[in-house]
Amino acid sequence: MKITSAHGSGGKMTSDLIHEIFEKHFSNHILNEMEDAAVLSLTTNRIAFTTDSFVVNPVFFPGGDIGRLCICGTVNDLLMRGAVPKYLSAGFILEEGLETEKLEKIALSMKEAANEAGVSIVAGDTKVIEGKGSVYINTSGIGLLNENRDISAKRTSEGDAVIISGYMGNHHACILSSRMGIENSIQSDCAPLNDIVNRLLQNDIDVHAMRDVTRGGLATVLNEIASASCTRIELSDTELADEQVTSFCNILGLDPLYMGNEGKLVLTVEKKDAQKTLELMKTSNYGQNAQII
Amino acid sequence: MKITSAHGSGGKMTSDLIHEIFEKHFSNHILNEMEDAAVLSLTTNRIAFTTDSFVVNPVFFPGGDIGRLCICGTVNDLLMRGAVPKYLSAGFILEEGLETEKLEKIALSMKEAANEAGVSIVAGDTKVIEGKGSVYINTSGIGLLNENRDISAKRTSEGDAVIISGYMGNHHACILSSRMGIENSIQSDCAPLNDIVNRLLQNDIDVHAMRDVTRGGLATVLNEIASASCTRIELSDTELADEQVTSFCNILGLDPLYMGNEGKLVLTVEKKDAQKTLELMKTSNYGQNAQII
Repeated sequence: MKITSAHGSGGKMTSDLIHEIFEKHFSNHILNEMEDAAVLSLTTNRIAFTTDSFVVNPVFFPGGDIGRLCICGTVNDLLMRGAVPKYLSAGFILEEGLETEKLEKIALSMKEAANEAGVSIVAGDTKVIEGKGSVYINTSGIGLLNENRDISAKRTSEGDAVIISGYMGNHHACILSSRMGIENSIQSDCAPLNDIVNRLLQNDIDVHAMRDVTRGGLATVLNEIASASCTRIELSDTELADEQVTSFCNILGLDPLYMGNEGKLVLTVEKKDAQKTLELMKTSNYGQNAQII
Repeated sequence: MKITSAHGSGGKMTSDLIHEIFEKHFSNHILNEMEDAAVLSLTTNRIAFTTDSFVVNPVFFPGGDIGRLCICGTVNDLLMRGAVPKYLSAGFILEEGLETEKLEKIALSMKEAANEAGVSIVAGDTKVIEGKGSVYINTSGIGLLNENRDISAKRTSEGDAVIISGYMGNHHACILSSRMGIENSIQSDCAPLNDIVNRLLQNDIDVHAMRDVTRGGLATVLNEIASASCTRIELSDTELADEQVTSFCNILGLDPLYMGNEGKLVLTVEKKDAQKTLELMKTSNYGQNAQII
């Protein structure tokens, strides 16, 4: 079945669509109440709150799809402040002509990523616009800050070590390859970073700044950190990208420093904590290729 | 200036756009930190959380624009659970070709509506897609629930009075008129409903169910309330729409019962509380035409 403007009318077709796809896969007692807003009882009154819209084209790509992406992206933003991601909202903008089978595949992907990241989707919204069958998703998220943790760019100071959790550019190179019809085996790195962050915080690593390296790449993020903390960041001469992405970048004249990722982070810690931090990151599934840069 | 794909790259043009339009108008100490997620210290740990995407076409219409709409819609969803709206996120999806002057006008409108509703925009995101110069906005919101209040559809019971805060269909009729090029003086009713709700709650009215009557109209909302509470709702023979909207509906063969609004609510209370509730609503600017139906 294809999405039509009637699915956005707010009438029976809207409620059928919500029931048959979103309620079915995201089901939890809060969402199932289907009220105008979800009522949440938190275990703390200090929270992190973030929002992100996902407009990736193509919607399905090697290593993931917009569904996995929209969960990981928002979960990672919460983690970067040291929060425990907990509740997500999902706002869908569907273009007319979208196959409901595709939408269901995306919803399933969201469900799996949400389970992996330990979050629940508790609020949702669905709109339909004219178009060519694409889909855009906004996810906003709430994370709990139990302790008096302050992870922010401005805490970076002179002499800090800068560590990345893995090679740069895989997501960006994967999307570009798909869009340009280039055949290779580059996969998106799209992943929730709960495990890496938990290992660091549970081991009392005093992380100064932490950012997920998405749109704009490492260069943009390091610029933001340097500017917020009035420091200057120098990179050592390391291989930032893996072999495949490096050769992809060489052919197209791209710089891995500016390539986006969806499951990589960069952090700053005092130099004395750098080695322990690196070892902890390397023990995590999504941090095996971590390096001090 | 027109929005181009470079404004969505995550690089300098993105940060300039954010700085010159969003930071300028939404400025507050939380947003200004420009971190991946906003850290919020709440005065309670019971909150309401909601999300809504706005895709209205045309973007500017008599009585408002997408900016006022996206603030009011999310604020009203929080109010409907008895929460005090406090923090909003704003996720912008901009189509290439959008005039930045239009975007700034929308941002200003958001700022004014946020001030009227007493909320701050503390998190944001901007993406760019191909298109014809339109804009879509997602707003998610957090409201505080200080008391042990339970306003939900399922609390409606037999014998309850059903009260609406004003005439139905003005927003929908206004948008349809704009889209069809029909000249009349129908204006959108787009408004934040803080004042009506505050008057009721401060006077200890035990509101059973409360919903803002948006997409799908009163019929859809009453159906949801009836279904959640296993009741049957009968409407008395009252004029649901004002004179202008009634004649607009008559000409086009539309039913005000199914017409959307953006600044109207419907609620249920015990019959004994109905008259006091109605009087309180009528003293509010956006509730002057309230009636028991």
